[in-house]
Amino acid sequence: MTSAAAAGTGAAEGTPRGRPRSEAAELAIVGAVLRLLDRGGSLGGMSVEGIAAEAGVGKATIYRRWPNKEALLLDVLVRTELPEPEYVDGTVRDVLVEIMEFFRMAALARRERSTLTLLDQFRAVPELHQRYLDQVIAPRRARLRKLITRGMERGEIRADIDPDLLGDLLVGPMLTRTLLHPDAGLDDPTLSATIVDTLLQGIAPVASGT
Amino acid sequence: MTSAAAAGTGAAEGTPRGRPRSEAAELAIVGAVLRLLDRGGSLGGMSVEGIAAEAGVGKATIYRRWPNKEALLLDVLVRTELPEPEYVDGTVRDVLVEIMEFFRMAALARRERSTLTLLDQFRAVPELHQRYLDQVIAPRRARLRKLITRGMERGEIRADIDPDLLGDLLVGPMLTRTLLHPDAGLDDPTLSATIVDTLLQGIAPVASGT
Repeated sequence: MTSAAAAGTGAAEGTPRGRPRSEAAELAIVGAVLRLLDRGGSLGGMSVEGIAAEAGVGKATIYRRWPNKEALLLDVLVRTELPEPEYVDGTVRDVLVEIMEFFRMAALARRERSTLTLLDQFRAVPELHQRYLDQVIAPRRARLRKLITRGMERGEIRADIDPDLLGDLLVGPMLTRTLLHPDAGLDDPTLSATIVDTLLQGIAPVASGT
Repeated sequence: MTSAAAAGTGAAEGTPRGRPRSEAAELAIVGAVLRLLDRGGSLGGMSVEGIAAEAGVGKATIYRRWPNKEALLLDVLVRTELPEPEYVDGTVRDVLVEIMEFFRMAALARRERSTLTLLDQFRAVPELHQRYLDQVIAPRRARLRKLITRGMERGEIRADIDPDLLGDLLVGPMLTRTLLHPDAGLDDPTLSATIVDTLLQGIAPVASGT
């Protein structure tokens, strides 16, 4: 879990955007947005002027990197996401547990930082919300679907289940515990394995299961 | 599902708050908040003055009913929730499917109205978010836990499962499909039964399940 546990700016990696000096300006701008949010600023009320002033750069420095405010804000959100790990090729059970651990770590990290607020604010702005769904959530869902489908092909998962529904069953508890029941125990290190094993075995008593 | 399917103002029912004239003023005030939100207003930027002006009442009319803006906003949110049905006393499987149908209908109704935005805005204001969790979500979770525990006592659900985790597994897919995958099919009338049956049977192939 080393790669998943390390907080990082994964989205920016592998995408060189110029000289180190440029990267420093970029980080200053991203940091400025996060500080403004931490102080209770809203995405709607945030202006490129205000962000530039907080970052100590000119507006042109921002527009050289992002075409508009929305693109900058999406980039800020993506940079606060944990980078998704490369999954090892084990049994489906083990790979799913590893993925759940990634979601658990991401949810815990989100609780520590202002990301939850940022994400909530994104949801309140339909255009930003859609960008987040398309560029962050949809690719993640596609990867999970692929892993589940592979498990079905190998005979480790029943083939008559909708892979997307299974994805929702796996991710759902992490989301409810982030948004609805923050005290319900995302800290539990056995949570991921318990979710996967409960789904594999089913909740009906074994006697009536066959 | 008649009671669950009917959109209503359940929170206000059974709580007489004065004469009909008073109720009309109350509805005008609640309607004013919803209109302000529909127009893109934020909870933080909303003032009692602004709400009173939109509703065509005086500030005193608002303060006679709600001690402060937060109490009014929570009441607006509660009124946009569907009333939870009284569950029939059938098999745990049937009762759980009925509960899931309630959550599905609630999620669909939320998608039609501005409630999602309202809920998002609540999340962005910690104090309002906490009130919503305490007064709306926690009692709902407690009811679900009670039903699951009863199913365990009757031998219909494995007794070695954490009832709260099972609650999260049930509700999770409705939440992911509301927030993360709005196109993934909350409209499917078989979704609730599929979720419950998948959880009961488990996702491991039957041959390796015993």
